[in-house]
Amino acid sequence: MENSEIFPHIDHTLLNPVATSKQIAALCREALNYNTASVCIPPCFVKRVWEKFPELNICTVIGFPLGYSTAQTKWFETKDAIVCGADEIDMVINQTEVKNGRFSVVEKEIALIKDACKNRILKVIVETCNLTRQEKIELCRVVTSAGADYIKTSTGFGSSGAAIEDVYLFRKYIGDNVKIKAAGGIKSKEQLEMFLNAGCDRIGTSSAVKMLIEGD
Amino acid sequence: MENSEIFPHIDHTLLNPVATSKQIAALCREALNYNTASVCIPPCFVKRVWEKFPELNICTVIGFPLGYSTAQTKWFETKDAIVCGADEIDMVINQTEVKNGRFSVVEKEIALIKDACKNRILKVIVETCNLTRQEKIELCRVVTSAGADYIKTSTGFGSSGAAIEDVYLFRKYIGDNVKIKAAGGIKSKEQLEMFLNAGCDRIGTSSAVKMLIEGD
Repeated sequence: MENSEIFPHIDHTLLNPVATSKQIAALCREALNYNTASVCIPPCFVKRVWEKFPELNICTVIGFPLGYSTAQTKWFETKDAIVCGADEIDMVINQTEVKNGRFSVVEKEIALIKDACKNRILKVIVETCNLTRQEKIELCRVVTSAGADYIKTSTGFGSSGAAIEDVYLFRKYIGDNVKIKAAGGIKSKEQLEMFLNAGCDRIGTSSAVKMLIEGD
Repeated sequence: MENSEIFPHIDHTLLNPVATSKQIAALCREALNYNTASVCIPPCFVKRVWEKFPELNICTVIGFPLGYSTAQTKWFETKDAIVCGADEIDMVINQTEVKNGRFSVVEKEIALIKDACKNRILKVIVETCNLTRQEKIELCRVVTSAGADYIKTSTGFGSSGAAIEDVYLFRKYIGDNVKIKAAGGIKSKEQLEMFLNAGCDRIGTSSAVKMLIEGD
């Protein structure tokens, strides 16, 4: 695939807890330069990026990366991010409720955040490395009926990242209106192509420029 | 040291993203049984624990573990946790602002959260594994002047946990009103004793019963 076909599917990402303003600004300039789908950045940077790069599509993370803040806090954090200028929201589900078997609580929380997002894009991170196959299937149903726009494999902070077989599984079980984002551990152009060919609409990575431009 | 001297300094902790209600309930029963200082649990469990175990001292985590949610979100999350029944708040500082050299922003955020805590205990997690010696010293000053009750070494989710030399460093540079909590990677009774003898008032660990009762 041509780079120009790949970049528009990249959420150009920097979620390191010690990322500086300088590093975030460099990420934003790369995103504009290479025409990525978005920049994916910590909540505390959203306002500054929105003021400095108003033309960028800004994605941020909610309840990240463990997902066990309360639904009220995730709701507030989403509203706050949108006020600060976020265009897309990547939320982490409450994994404790998955393990409790309370999928209706997980669904209700996603629906609450989708309501806070209004017409903005909501991606739902299910953190596949912690899930059984049955839980993944059940979450495809939950993410679909809660009205989310994307199901996303991983935070990048779990024990492992995106697995191609999970993309195949998602394709079987998610609804027609739900797209797929793969994230976590994608480190080569061939992997990028593989995930896109498997049906992912977005790829979250901090290494896109390294993979596609520097040929590393 | 006798176990009965150690347990009252333990924040009995379960912060696994897939912890179930059953596991949290077991943790609470152990805390009551062994008379630990508190249970340290995810925000989403605070209300249920407070309703079921009203006699427990409940500690929860804010902006955890990466610390880069906005100050407003940390403020809301703290208020929400207190309404739900939290007695103690362990917040993560904004490490990105440390690396930007904007210590006044870090201090202002801690003071904001202390204000939300009112008379409840605020512990400030600085995540030592990401800090230089000079940053640690500067943060001792910041944590002290912001009015926090404790400085805490680590989240347990970083690249390494509590180091005894950091406790010695903290003792040199924190104010008289600030106590020390060590957390992350403490795995033997001898380490517990070492950290307590070095001047820690609290130890955060999920393994206290294993270390002290099961002798593991």
